[in-house]
Amino acid sequence: MPIEVTKALKEQIELLVSNKDDKSINALLENQHHADIAELLKELNLDDITYIIKLLDSDLTSDILMELDDDTREKILKNLSAKEIAEELEELDTDDAADMIAELPEERQESVISAIEDQEHKAEIEELLGYAEDTAGGLMAKELVKVYETWTVAGCLRRIRGQAKDVQRVHSIYVVNKAEQLIGRLSLKDLITAKSDQKIADIYISNVDYVHVNDDDEEVAKVMAKYDLEAVPVIDDDNRLVGRITIDDIVDVLKEEADKDYQLAAGITNEVEADDSILKLTKARLPWLILGLFGGLGSVFIMEGFEGALNNYKELFFFTPLIAAMAGNVGVQSSAIIVQGLANDVVKGSLWSRLLKEIGLSLINGTVLAILVILFGLFTSLHLKFSLTIAISMLGVIIIAALIGTFVPIILNKRGIDPAIATGPFITTSNDIFGIFLFFYIAKLILGF
Amino acid sequence: MPIEVTKALKEQIELLVSNKDDKSINALLENQHHADIAELLKELNLDDITYIIKLLDSDLTSDILMELDDDTREKILKNLSAKEIAEELEELDTDDAADMIAELPEERQESVISAIEDQEHKAEIEELLGYAEDTAGGLMAKELVKVYETWTVAGCLRRIRGQAKDVQRVHSIYVVNKAEQLIGRLSLKDLITAKSDQKIADIYISNVDYVHVNDDDEEVAKVMAKYDLEAVPVIDDDNRLVGRITIDDIVDVLKEEADKDYQLAAGITNEVEADDSILKLTKARLPWLILGLFGGLGSVFIMEGFEGALNNYKELFFFTPLIAAMAGNVGVQSSAIIVQGLANDVVKGSLWSRLLKEIGLSLINGTVLAILVILFGLFTSLHLKFSLTIAISMLGVIIIAALIGTFVPIILNKRGIDPAIATGPFITTSNDIFGIFLFFYIAKLILGF
Repeated sequence: MPIEVTKALKEQIELLVSNKDDKSINALLENQHHADIAELLKELNLDDITYIIKLLDSDLTSDILMELDDDTREKILKNLSAKEIAEELEELDTDDAADMIAELPEERQESVISAIEDQEHKAEIEELLGYAEDTAGGLMAKELVKVYETWTVAGCLRRIRGQAKDVQRVHSIYVVNKAEQLIGRLSLKDLITAKSDQKIADIYISNVDYVHVNDDDEEVAKVMAKYDLEAVPVIDDDNRLVGRITIDDIVDVLKEEADKDYQLAAGITNEVEADDSILKLTKARLPWLILGLFGGLGSVFIMEGFEGALNNYKELFFFTPLIAAMAGNVGVQSSAIIVQGLANDVVKGSLWSRLLKEIGLSLINGTVLAILVILFGLFTSLHLKFSLTIAISMLGVIIIAALIGTFVPIILNKRGIDPAIATGPFITTSNDIFGIFLFFYIAKLILGF
Repeated sequence: MPIEVTKALKEQIELLVSNKDDKSINALLENQHHADIAELLKELNLDDITYIIKLLDSDLTSDILMELDDDTREKILKNLSAKEIAEELEELDTDDAADMIAELPEERQESVISAIEDQEHKAEIEELLGYAEDTAGGLMAKELVKVYETWTVAGCLRRIRGQAKDVQRVHSIYVVNKAEQLIGRLSLKDLITAKSDQKIADIYISNVDYVHVNDDDEEVAKVMAKYDLEAVPVIDDDNRLVGRITIDDIVDVLKEEADKDYQLAAGITNEVEADDSILKLTKARLPWLILGLFGGLGSVFIMEGFEGALNNYKELFFFTPLIAAMAGNVGVQSSAIIVQGLANDVVKGSLWSRLLKEIGLSLINGTVLAILVILFGLFTSLHLKFSLTIAISMLGVIIIAALIGTFVPIILNKRGIDPAIATGPFITTSNDIFGIFLFFYIAKLILGF
């Protein structure tokens, strides 16, 4: 029976910890799934979590640690000795172990690594630490099942039993030649349906997808999603098989990428969560607000420049928030669609055809909105010429805002900058200023103040 | 060698199609991956795509069809006979086949289903069509490897060879009792490392994760992500094993969910893509713009109510876009963090502690911004009392905007409404109106106009 995290269970655990009733804690938790235990621990305070981590078996706690969020894990690791951390690492797959070490302060990393007893595991982790975090090398694990083309099916099965012990899930068996170069793949299914005296060279599938150790992680995610792969082998410059990436790591990459884009669109930089500290949240949010403030102050200057209109057309000034909102909303819509399209590789056609399409869209949307403004004017007995002026200026602002929203992310993308940065406050602010200027400028042309 | 989609290749294919050179088309494409062919076809016009789909083998084209976007697939299926569609369906896994049928107009569905020759496949597809699209039943496939606890390891391996033919990837072998109820699991690895005369009952693992056929798809995604599952069995009300969901379907669910939230934040309803028709894009975007328009017109009324301030404090009106921008940006930031936190289950603590935190955050951010406004006032020689008024009103607006941004998604979520709807234009618009009213109201209290 999986535990359910309730207030009663939380209080029970807290009591057991304060009584140092190790036996009961072990009995309660030892057969639970690490993800469930992690969920329970998230409710406790740091001292209690540390107590439980030190108490439970490291084959369980290593997985629990990987489930906790970075901040909590960092604090717990601070309370563990290098030897204790090394014990956790021995239980983890090489990719998770390398990730955990990379989070430690640099001065501790070396002492932890040298405390790892399994020399092969240690060497593999050290190799992985050499790759940049956001590359295939930074994602891959060394655990994989590898066979040589010269082996027989029977010999293969015998040896796989040994290798597979270290591998949680056997997705594919990778076939290499004498030089350790990847030449093909096999599935367990192929192996058990083959005759036992056949040579691997005769039955393997040479058509194998792979990625290069220096490939960008988002590139790896795209390849795996496109070809529906659950695992992909990683090769180095000499085509040697050096690791394997599984789909669960890619799910994390996709999720992080989506969260980041979402936050950028909302004007939040850095990866933050609702439960982060006020200081961290301020650092993520304040810069965008300051940007917005400067934009707003820019509008103040623009309106001061058109102050002459106050005498006869004071209502123009009542419409500025409407114009700013339209310019901002249209800009965000256009840029969001382009940013998503760029991420999913569906933005086709030339820049010009794309801009023409946005103009068409803006004309339709803008005309509907302009008619509504004119109707509003009729109901509130605004002068028709004045309503028309506002409607026409607004239409102009909408078209320009859509073009800026489309143009900016495409340009950024072409220059190798993440176009997601262009959505949200960036587009809203620039469109606010530009929209208000354009609004007054067109109004001045028509009304002549 | 995988093909690379270039202009030259596109023109080559177009020429081959117009010459009806079937042999060359087949030679060029038959050994390619379906995802690569789909990418190439996306560049062609509908007639050419249909020609190629009719030409190539259905074991290849069925997968290609699943890779194309909904609109294109729909149009191609219109040009195929019920018999031709049925042939495609025979090649697909039951889950994909059911999805494809569900996209057909209702009047065609029946004729296509009755044209399916494989009676078992047909019955399974019909069963799947009975489940709602966004449930475990709507996601699952009938293809799975199932063994009875009474079988021996040797008998099992023999029978699995038969079952596995229909299953692309064997993740887990599910163990059932005589009543077809799920009682446990086995991996191929366990099977090949067991002795051949052992009974399944003695070696299976009874600890198995599963989902219920009526579970929500997002719930399934959460379970699979939490327990790091690559496949999960699905059971019905009587605990009978009825299907299996694989991680690649979940990747799609996560991606769709993220795309939807992102678009809602940007003020776009419906799932649209940059390459959709202008009409579809208008329908997705216009409603939010109209909402923004009404918000803007509301601000016009509010400012008319404070018209008296125009005589002595006309600059107040120059600051309205700034106030609206601040209220909007702060609101979007607060709501985005809450929406993301709710999606990831990281929003803890009571509503009151959450609101207190937002007030703290707004006080810090607001104070910094207020100081900047006062500095701006000093440089542009605004009257100090006036600068202070704007700074204080803005601070008030920021605090209220943050509270609304936090409060609304939490309330919506508690009532079972998707909180993502609260981000973007919804929050911006309500905060615009509310912010501008509050700004003038506070200013009136201080300046007394």
